[in-house]
Amino acid sequence: MKPIKAGLLGIGTVGAGTFQVLQRNQEEIRRRAGRGIEVTMVAARNLERARAVVGAGCEVVADPFAVVNHPEIDIVVELIGGYELARELVLQAIANGKHVVTANKALLALHGNEIFAAAHAKGVMVAFEAAVAGGVPIIKALREGLSANRIESVAGIINGTTNFILSEMRDKGLDFATVLKQAQELGYAEADPTFDIEGVDAAHKLTIMAAIAFGIPMQFGSAHIEGISQLQAIDIRYAEQLGYRIKLLGITRRTVVDGEEGIELRVHPTLIPSARLIANVEGAMNAVLVQADAVGTSMYYGKGAGAEPTASAVIADLIDVTRSATVDPYSRVPHLAFHPTELADVPVRPMEEISTSYYLRVTVQDQLGVMADLTRILADAGISIDAVLQKEPGEKARTDIVIITHQTREKFVDAAIGKIEQLPATEGKVVRIRLESLG
Amino acid sequence: MKPIKAGLLGIGTVGAGTFQVLQRNQEEIRRRAGRGIEVTMVAARNLERARAVVGAGCEVVADPFAVVNHPEIDIVVELIGGYELARELVLQAIANGKHVVTANKALLALHGNEIFAAAHAKGVMVAFEAAVAGGVPIIKALREGLSANRIESVAGIINGTTNFILSEMRDKGLDFATVLKQAQELGYAEADPTFDIEGVDAAHKLTIMAAIAFGIPMQFGSAHIEGISQLQAIDIRYAEQLGYRIKLLGITRRTVVDGEEGIELRVHPTLIPSARLIANVEGAMNAVLVQADAVGTSMYYGKGAGAEPTASAVIADLIDVTRSATVDPYSRVPHLAFHPTELADVPVRPMEEISTSYYLRVTVQDQLGVMADLTRILADAGISIDAVLQKEPGEKARTDIVIITHQTREKFVDAAIGKIEQLPATEGKVVRIRLESLG
Repeated sequence: MKPIKAGLLGIGTVGAGTFQVLQRNQEEIRRRAGRGIEVTMVAARNLERARAVVGAGCEVVADPFAVVNHPEIDIVVELIGGYELARELVLQAIANGKHVVTANKALLALHGNEIFAAAHAKGVMVAFEAAVAGGVPIIKALREGLSANRIESVAGIINGTTNFILSEMRDKGLDFATVLKQAQELGYAEADPTFDIEGVDAAHKLTIMAAIAFGIPMQFGSAHIEGISQLQAIDIRYAEQLGYRIKLLGITRRTVVDGEEGIELRVHPTLIPSARLIANVEGAMNAVLVQADAVGTSMYYGKGAGAEPTASAVIADLIDVTRSATVDPYSRVPHLAFHPTELADVPVRPMEEISTSYYLRVTVQDQLGVMADLTRILADAGISIDAVLQKEPGEKARTDIVIITHQTREKFVDAAIGKIEQLPATEGKVVRIRLESLG
Repeated sequence: MKPIKAGLLGIGTVGAGTFQVLQRNQEEIRRRAGRGIEVTMVAARNLERARAVVGAGCEVVADPFAVVNHPEIDIVVELIGGYELARELVLQAIANGKHVVTANKALLALHGNEIFAAAHAKGVMVAFEAAVAGGVPIIKALREGLSANRIESVAGIINGTTNFILSEMRDKGLDFATVLKQAQELGYAEADPTFDIEGVDAAHKLTIMAAIAFGIPMQFGSAHIEGISQLQAIDIRYAEQLGYRIKLLGITRRTVVDGEEGIELRVHPTLIPSARLIANVEGAMNAVLVQADAVGTSMYYGKGAGAEPTASAVIADLIDVTRSATVDPYSRVPHLAFHPTELADVPVRPMEEISTSYYLRVTVQDQLGVMADLTRILADAGISIDAVLQKEPGEKARTDIVIITHQTREKFVDAAIGKIEQLPATEGKVVRIRLESLG
């Protein structure tokens, strides 16, 4: 069979990695795929640099639409990132009847519904394993490996930058700003790290996983997003003393509350029991924990970013698309795991309605009776206490009281916090971090 | 589209689980697969019990060949286990042009080459996700998710019974025989536990993973197999003190020694650094660690056995087969990951030629100069030492000397052990356990 022809849009880190792995492993890949995969055309801003990467035998152009509109390209690999141009290019490729492979989570989280509808109408594939957790085949696991299951929840460490920062903060007892600066120097964080540290990147990936886990449309606009920039070293330390680690988790869960089905879709720092395997995922690694009714707990772990790990996922998609290209579209694995007519429009639940456990840190003037007041407020709100830690941070006559609650609704906790902050002994704001037992 | 029809051979634990999950999740499964999957026929030894499980609307027969030969059955699900009858049934199903789904690792490890050749010739599929690590989609990950990679090694905790026993031995400081008895009472070990505790079950699974990771035929006969029945509690304790845990690992690795390509294929107790994620996989859980050139390290974790976890894999295979049934065989994912004409006949390397690190325990009479003798023997053999622990077990005037070596060839270590056992101060045999850093 003659090789399938792919065109790359963008030849930066991931593009160059894809090109190089395709070359290096061309024999392995051909032995598996049954036919070769050739990159015959690349669109790049810096033509000279692109030519240095791809060498002769591959056309380099400045205009990405020249790739998308080229009659001999079978698969377009979108690696330029961003929303608008990427959206136009992908939609144009689909309109031209080409299959698409993309690593662009932002694009899919925001415009996925439009893109998958267009691909479905045209009978082409849009593959996106590289959009979540780099080379870890989590899209394939959720969409195919666990297809027998009713998936209940997905919880993932899906941003390497923030996991690196949190690991360093814990390991070295440093504060956020110091570690961020180191991470930038080491290349683990970008010059503008906002999307990573504020949880936006994780929310993009979580949105995609929620869609394929539950058969719902992309609902990025409804995701609750909190990053780690406000996290203080002292809370990491207290959590440790209580047997927990703090991770930035993306959590999505299908729940029924008062008879109404809803989806939780939330990214925030989260305490996890230290004994859980996922609590021990350190540095820039990613891991996704899935709960499903038949298989129970399963976890998928690996590098979430980098040239070759991401290339691994891009090329796996290229091979899948190559195999499925000749297949009747109805028999292919559906883009969002469920057939398009079978998607369910389950709404995202507002955060005040979610149920979880909480870590609360209250700084008080060390005065008699304050613990009684605190516990009374929680008891009145129907919130039961799992553990308490009382610590003197050393300075002045202040005491930190740390409380771990049992599971309760967020609105009850927030109401109780309002009352705690009104107590005369309370200094400043109460620190509230969510806690998941992931049991 | 009308439902696809499956017939089950065997309706024990996994068969009943498969039937029940298919029923319970039939809506989710139909929404994903695009058509229903119906079990219309079941072969069972105990007809009455089988009828109680499947109810009306599903024919129950005593003769499994009646299922295999039934013209309306599209997919045969082989869950009876064992070698000979299962082999006959599977080959007959293939000859009849039916697809096969099986959870039978022993069958595939021993007769896989014959079975896959027959399936290839007939253009039908034999799917086997359930044969390795239960519901963890490791076959799919190796065969499809990592298809861009040159896979370098696979190391797995792929037998829940032994991992449960080792976890208990470490946790409670008990010896093997005591824990085995408890495991049998709890249902974690079978009445005849030989296949599990002697590593045979793990070797079956490892053989299958090696085939799809490297594109080689099944070579179960060449696997090195050691179980955990000889493992002593004291070595678990010493390992712990040195920063290691002992797991029964199945390890397969592609190496080049003196210019010759070879495959390591071995199951044995193994020391792993405690800080590794896989060292913290406890109880009856399974985990498989894969090293591959593009993606680096990735790990897959979950329940390796049980009715519903195994059913999860069986049904995922049913859905895959349902999707691929109408596809031109050349475009399907090849059984052993690589197209049949592309399998490579790389031999399994003899154990004496493998390279790894070693834990050695020498019991000596506490006499001057013995450490000098030991280290001299190792130095003469070109074996360098990573760590030493000297312990007095309490009884008599004996001392345990534990040595962790750096990487060396097994034949060099065995030769050195021979000399150590000749020393006048040495009591009995030297305990030798392999150590993998999995870094």
